[in-house]
Amino acid sequence: MPHEQHTALINTLHECMEACNHCFDACLEEDDVKMMAGCIRLDRECADICGYLEQALGRGTPFASELASVCAKICEECGNECKQHDHDHCQKCADACFKCAEECKRFAA
Amino acid sequence: MPHEQHTALINTLHECMEACNHCFDACLEEDDVKMMAGCIRLDRECADICGYLEQALGRGTPFASELASVCAKICEECGNECKQHDHDHCQKCADACFKCAEECKRFAA
Amino acid sequence: MPHEQHTALINTLHECMEACNHCFDACLEEDDVKMMAGCIRLDRECADICGYLEQALGRGTPFASELASVCAKICEECGNECKQHDHDHCQKCADACFKCAEECKRFAA
Amino acid sequence: MPHEQHTALINTLHECMEACNHCFDACLEEDDVKMMAGCIRLDRECADICGYLEQALGRGTPFASELASVCAKICEECGNECKQHDHDHCQKCADACFKCAEECKRFAA
Repeated sequence: MPHEQHTALINTLHECMEACNHCFDACLEEDDVKMMAGCIRLDRECADICGYLEQALGRGTPFASELASVCAKICEECGNECKQHDHDHCQKCADACFKCAEECKRFAA
Repeated sequence: MPHEQHTALINTLHECMEACNHCFDACLEEDDVKMMAGCIRLDRECADICGYLEQALGRGTPFASELASVCAKICEECGNECKQHDHDHCQKCADACFKCAEECKRFAA
Repeated sequence: MPHEQHTALINTLHECMEACNHCFDACLEEDDVKMMAGCIRLDRECADICGYLEQALGRGTPFASELASVCAKICEECGNECKQHDHDHCQKCADACFKCAEECKRFAA
Repeated sequence: MPHEQHTALINTLHECMEACNHCFDACLEEDDVKMMAGCIRLDRECADICGYLEQALGRGTPFASELASVCAKICEECGNECKQHDHDHCQKCADACFKCAEECKRFAA
């Protein structure tokens, strides 16, 4: 099964996408939405690239390494933004992003 | 957490997307690719809508029911095509599609 | 060319996606982001489904009608939200959404 | 309007996505589908990344350059595969891919 070696990364990407989408959703419900604008923006970027890479790995893309490398960068910037906010959803999102950035970097190497 | 009630469906969508992408990939490696053309086409349709709905549920989309209803139909047609082929990847994909179609239908109702 | 009959709709979807993404981006830069939260959320929903349907029509999806019907609904709700806001990007987005909703509805019928 | 400077690239990406999706669709209808397997696979990769980058540029992604760089590589490989096939849809797709690869490279630089 061509994507078996990618299963661990696919799961991590999935968790990161979920955390980012939940954070996006929750940020839009916060009292101070303005303070969360950067977070909302990066949550979408990060959820979208994680979802994209999941799909691409699952179908045996020949560009796994290049895509993982971009994904690592986006996860890292999203994590850096999220960790500045005290909301539980931001902190959890930051954790998921940093974990995913690490795995993407290792995979791309 | 707004998407918690959707967790079961998200997991099923994820498994269906994975099965479809694996089937897409494997069909393209078969000896008789021509016989698999319908399968290849529907695998992409189905993987894409499952991935889309996963993302949408995760961010608390207000259109969950409408999207699940379309997804159910696509899963069903992909399952019907796949189950006609003896390849292991097609049979597994058909199972994942029918399971996902059922859950989407129940969710949309 | 299988997608030629869809060219007009594809162009309208493309314009709507562009208007929604621009509105998403601009809403996040407004002074009162909180007031724009519903707009930000629906802009993403609408941009994503328009982009999805564009792709699907271009590859000759067998589910054009079902997808256009969901897209029409999402465009309409996004248009309804956007037209309540005076910002130029919201008004332009509402116009693009209503035009796209109409064409999707006609196409789906 | 944040995405105005990106309009030319967005149009090129759109044309490339359309050409790839049409080629994907047409390859699946050819007599010798097996010979087109590589083309079918790369058409999907290329259509998906072009569609993704279109969306991302439209919303003012902070990762435009990194994404354009990956997109350039995928377009180039898709173009290289397509130009080996005499079908009109493959030749047109190759042209669109090479044009898009060039613009992405210039943009990323």
